[in-house]
Amino acid sequence: MQLDQATQEQLRQWETELADEYQRIVNQKLNLDLTRGKPSPEQLSLSDALDGILKGDYKAADGTDTRNYGGLDGLPEAKQLGANLMGVDPEDVLVGGNSSLTLMFQVMLTAHQFGLTGADSAWKNEGNVKFLCPVPGYDRHHTVCEQLGIDMIAVPMTDAGPDMDKVEALVKDDPRIKGMWCVPKYSNPTGVVYSDETVERIAALGKIAGPNFRVFWDNAYAVHDLVDNPPELACVMKACAQHGTEDSVIQFASTSKITHAGAGVAFVNASPANLKGFKQFLGTCTIGPDKVNQIRHSRFLPNRDALMKHMQGHAELLKPRFAAVLDALNEAFAESDLGNWQEPQGGYFVSFDTRPGCAQDTVRLAAEAGVKLTPAGATFPYGQDPEDRNIRIAPSVPSVEEVKGAMKVFVVCVKLASVRKQLAS
Amino acid sequence: MQLDQATQEQLRQWETELADEYQRIVNQKLNLDLTRGKPSPEQLSLSDALDGILKGDYKAADGTDTRNYGGLDGLPEAKQLGANLMGVDPEDVLVGGNSSLTLMFQVMLTAHQFGLTGADSAWKNEGNVKFLCPVPGYDRHHTVCEQLGIDMIAVPMTDAGPDMDKVEALVKDDPRIKGMWCVPKYSNPTGVVYSDETVERIAALGKIAGPNFRVFWDNAYAVHDLVDNPPELACVMKACAQHGTEDSVIQFASTSKITHAGAGVAFVNASPANLKGFKQFLGTCTIGPDKVNQIRHSRFLPNRDALMKHMQGHAELLKPRFAAVLDALNEAFAESDLGNWQEPQGGYFVSFDTRPGCAQDTVRLAAEAGVKLTPAGATFPYGQDPEDRNIRIAPSVPSVEEVKGAMKVFVVCVKLASVRKQLAS
Repeated sequence: MQLDQATQEQLRQWETELADEYQRIVNQKLNLDLTRGKPSPEQLSLSDALDGILKGDYKAADGTDTRNYGGLDGLPEAKQLGANLMGVDPEDVLVGGNSSLTLMFQVMLTAHQFGLTGADSAWKNEGNVKFLCPVPGYDRHHTVCEQLGIDMIAVPMTDAGPDMDKVEALVKDDPRIKGMWCVPKYSNPTGVVYSDETVERIAALGKIAGPNFRVFWDNAYAVHDLVDNPPELACVMKACAQHGTEDSVIQFASTSKITHAGAGVAFVNASPANLKGFKQFLGTCTIGPDKVNQIRHSRFLPNRDALMKHMQGHAELLKPRFAAVLDALNEAFAESDLGNWQEPQGGYFVSFDTRPGCAQDTVRLAAEAGVKLTPAGATFPYGQDPEDRNIRIAPSVPSVEEVKGAMKVFVVCVKLASVRKQLAS
Repeated sequence: MQLDQATQEQLRQWETELADEYQRIVNQKLNLDLTRGKPSPEQLSLSDALDGILKGDYKAADGTDTRNYGGLDGLPEAKQLGANLMGVDPEDVLVGGNSSLTLMFQVMLTAHQFGLTGADSAWKNEGNVKFLCPVPGYDRHHTVCEQLGIDMIAVPMTDAGPDMDKVEALVKDDPRIKGMWCVPKYSNPTGVVYSDETVERIAALGKIAGPNFRVFWDNAYAVHDLVDNPPELACVMKACAQHGTEDSVIQFASTSKITHAGAGVAFVNASPANLKGFKQFLGTCTIGPDKVNQIRHSRFLPNRDALMKHMQGHAELLKPRFAAVLDALNEAFAESDLGNWQEPQGGYFVSFDTRPGCAQDTVRLAAEAGVKLTPAGATFPYGQDPEDRNIRIAPSVPSVEEVKGAMKVFVVCVKLASVRKQLAS
């Protein structure tokens, strides 16, 4: 199906056929959901040994009684788990509670309101500040900025990460740009892994940016591979060390999509100066994180090998679901001008770009046919996709058969929305 | 020992004797600690069945898979646990992570920066705002205000709670007073239980206060009794309902001193309007709390009877420690003018007031003799006890023998500091 070359007559015929097909789907009263970027029950069960793993031994290796208060920055063995996950030094890791989003919010709140390196460094001192958001991106990152009153500037994603020419030009030009959101590996939602050059250039931003510039490096999918020889992400902290910009990047990760999504352990990896400032803040709002859960996780995933082996279990469950999505897209659209997508080698999403102006209609049609998709625009700051093209597909929770069923509907909805748009233009 | 009636000669003789006794203690090179308001390992062990309690069943009563994301305001059975603890309706309870301090910080941040009932209600819109702090009080409450730039006004504690004549006069006079910290039962550190009249008058403050007034009701010791027929705290929320001031009080509690101190579950109890505003904020910084830990706690403490029975185990461990403190104080000071204290019927502390100007010296002397006490002034806003009198004694962690040993030192240090002060005056 090539819409650009189609005659009006051909378009009208397609519209009739597709409308019929769509109506048949509506009549089936389906109830399918491709919105949820979370593990399936089967994936969660891979970690059910967590509860009871302690067998009465609540002591950490250093003798800490994990049951009691304290330990603001986490147990040594939990820092090691974070280090294994992110490929960094355990000394540069702080271990939090169950949510890396909470840590990101807290670090951004600290940077904005209180200053990560003293009160003088607070972004709010400079008036309205701005943050770069590669698009499409993760809606909850955008919400954090919005909540804190930080203006967002969208920058386009490429196959190698954010468009670094644009990023560098913006950062050089405006010292009130205080940082950038990044999901550097299996980016949410595009699945892109930042290239070595991109990582290198991001590490160098601190040399051309205004004061107190901080990249928020959300390494949410660091070990979430779907292929046997997965791409390697360059270590941004090493690159920063070479540029002397260690304070300009703050890394986040968690076990949320490794063990139990709502009951995992989250990590911050940052320079000593950033960690010091953050801990100063953290000490005002908690006596310490849940160390019992930290020690559970440390015993469950005692080293990098155990971690990577555990992740293979996830990959086995996820692979056929991603294959169902990609097979359907290839079959329907490989020979068409109806959309573009990437084949992710890991992560939780497939990102599909419709023809301009067709995403909202597609999502609406799918919803009316019983297939829930993430709202169009959700991957853009302020929920506004200027070209109305991007749709995020999350296949992890439904069964393979359900994914196949939902993708059949998706394909028809994309085609119908596209043909109607073309007819109306 | 009565200093006010003593001659200079008598004082000098006491000083010599006490200095000798003190030196003998110093020579023992003790290492004792009365600073830590936390459970002892024996108390923590009362809850060791928590890990493994699920036996593979991670489902909540309503079918929620506790392992996955979501459930911003907590599981129904965890709300019930909070309701059992605070004596309120489960629908008015939100369940958080492991820290009620974090919830208090987050609620105060919301009230100050973002507004609990819409952006117009944010305290910061009114410029510098103030908060009442009954003294002596809990240092971490003060730290939250300080971090957020909220000025603190100290109001004295009486045997029935905060001095309500002063509180009402202040609140009436200054609409920028936005609330008051309260630990209404077994107040930290005095052990006072607010009288029914105090609770009633606090519930009525919302009628005379400026806009967006919020009492932070930290019911940290709601079920932490040390006696068989413990005093009952009136329900502030019921009193508020009668006055139509439901929005003016926000209650907090947690299982921190019930199960595992660092790995418990924390609760907020508030009006629908306050909960709605708080959840709006909370949704920007977390996908949800650790529901696995919530279900563990709900199974471990399934009803009010189980909760109260569990607390008896704590009381049995704490009673002899408190007795050791109170016996030592009675023996040494009952017939003296060297200090005042109350006999708490629950909670974690004994609060001792020295003669004016003697607290810092006492704490320093004790430290030099190997007995660590909470820094003098810690119980006051900005760490400043204007009369330098209050010392907080926390006997829960050391053994009974250690408490007895530490109190011997404490008594000598109080006497020595007091005699020297009197000699110098």
